[in-house]
Amino acid sequence: MSGDLTRFSINQMTVRQLSLPELAETCGELGVRGVGLWRAPVHAYGVEAAATLMRDAGLRVTTLCRGGFFTAADPRERAAALDDNRRAVEEAATLGTDTLVLVSGGLPPGSKDLRGARERIADALAELGPYAQARGVRLAIEPLHPMYAADRCVVSTLAQALDLAERFPAEQVGVTVDTYHLWWDDRAPEQIARAGATGRLHAFQLADWITPLPEGVLEGRGQLGDGSVDLREWRGYAEAAGYTGPIEVELFNAGLWARDGREVLTETAERFLMYATG
Amino acid sequence: MSGDLTRFSINQMTVRQLSLPELAETCGELGVRGVGLWRAPVHAYGVEAAATLMRDAGLRVTTLCRGGFFTAADPRERAAALDDNRRAVEEAATLGTDTLVLVSGGLPPGSKDLRGARERIADALAELGPYAQARGVRLAIEPLHPMYAADRCVVSTLAQALDLAERFPAEQVGVTVDTYHLWWDDRAPEQIARAGATGRLHAFQLADWITPLPEGVLEGRGQLGDGSVDLREWRGYAEAAGYTGPIEVELFNAGLWARDGREVLTETAERFLMYATG
Repeated sequence: MSGDLTRFSINQMTVRQLSLPELAETCGELGVRGVGLWRAPVHAYGVEAAATLMRDAGLRVTTLCRGGFFTAADPRERAAALDDNRRAVEEAATLGTDTLVLVSGGLPPGSKDLRGARERIADALAELGPYAQARGVRLAIEPLHPMYAADRCVVSTLAQALDLAERFPAEQVGVTVDTYHLWWDDRAPEQIARAGATGRLHAFQLADWITPLPEGVLEGRGQLGDGSVDLREWRGYAEAAGYTGPIEVELFNAGLWARDGREVLTETAERFLMYATG
Repeated sequence: MSGDLTRFSINQMTVRQLSLPELAETCGELGVRGVGLWRAPVHAYGVEAAATLMRDAGLRVTTLCRGGFFTAADPRERAAALDDNRRAVEEAATLGTDTLVLVSGGLPPGSKDLRGARERIADALAELGPYAQARGVRLAIEPLHPMYAADRCVVSTLAQALDLAERFPAEQVGVTVDTYHLWWDDRAPEQIARAGATGRLHAFQLADWITPLPEGVLEGRGQLGDGSVDLREWRGYAEAAGYTGPIEVELFNAGLWARDGREVLTETAERFLMYATG
């Protein structure tokens, strides 16, 4: 493929039909150097084995997705979530990535208390931040689109994510910027600058916005260039904020999953060059 | 029904299975004094006839839904939209309501220019505002949930709506606050106060947020009390901002539409008393 893929990283979820060895092999063929991994497929393959596979293929693991789900009110559930997040930190360290992406969690069943849920995230970060830092891993709070506020993530804007992150050292807690979640927000560009200025822009992901949204609104992210997001403009905001790290493409899209994974990865890299480069 | 329904208004879309005469009759039976109407069913019945029907039933028309769709880039489309909005203003005046709710419009096909689309809304308001004021009608920009930013409304937050409205006199342009669209936004309470302080809180609507969202995300609003929104708290924000007007309940919900309309209107009034009163 002609074009500079140095910054490009493919999030595993974009081509989840590929096994980890198939993913590593296809990346090698295309000249892709970075991958974002997810815990469940890594567990299924074995964490150590996945780390070896990626290392032997010369692939950098750019993020591990995901920790989080900190908003339970029940003490036993909260303790279990913290335990699970400590394991996620250890897995990130084993895989050689410095970034654990956090999806913070939605409202507990029956609750209407967004503020309380957000505060419990801060409580969890206070415990988890030093644990992660000691293992060379940064926590990266990902604000999710407001349509997920009830059931997945009460952190809906980059400003909220930074308000949370800034209570802790930047080496412990920063943010993930994903265009799918933030593209509509006229305040997001200034907040990306804020994240850069405080050393908290830990991960940057691209996806396009397409409609109509599917039922459940989870599997309708657009292939780069198919939707409403000016991806080059958003990459520009990140770079103006000093971001020089990998740019992950993470698409949850049932249509892409139904196609040949190598073809989808090739297309995604081509779209990255066409819509998010130069 | 026991309880104070003085402030309660039923938006016609909540019980769209009821004809206008059935709606008027059921409101009379239940002691409901206000209705929010939609243009299409009013056109089908006849604007003058609908006005007479509502007046004879002692019903106040609290809003007319809706004007807007100002974001087209094509000059002929823009002129047609302005013509249509002038007709909407006249219909509002005929129906005796002082408030025309505006859904501003999404991105034109193929466009990624949110800023440009928002600016075209301002251009339209500049033309339409004086026309509406001369007929005793206020324009009320409704920020829609960010999940509609591409295809229905590029105004996604109350702050954006007020930034637009404040370019014009408050007698011409204000805002509609609907809990369904704003409940996730931690800045919305302070923006409601801003709307009140500047005399721009022209309409207030309630709906609850439930998941999972249906395909297309249009017909999944929750009956009051069924979801994640603390409705009493949001009513409190509006009243703290000095709002003393009608409180409309506007639910787009395929499940409610499949039921008997009188039963749904009764339930909605009961839920209003239970979850948004006292």
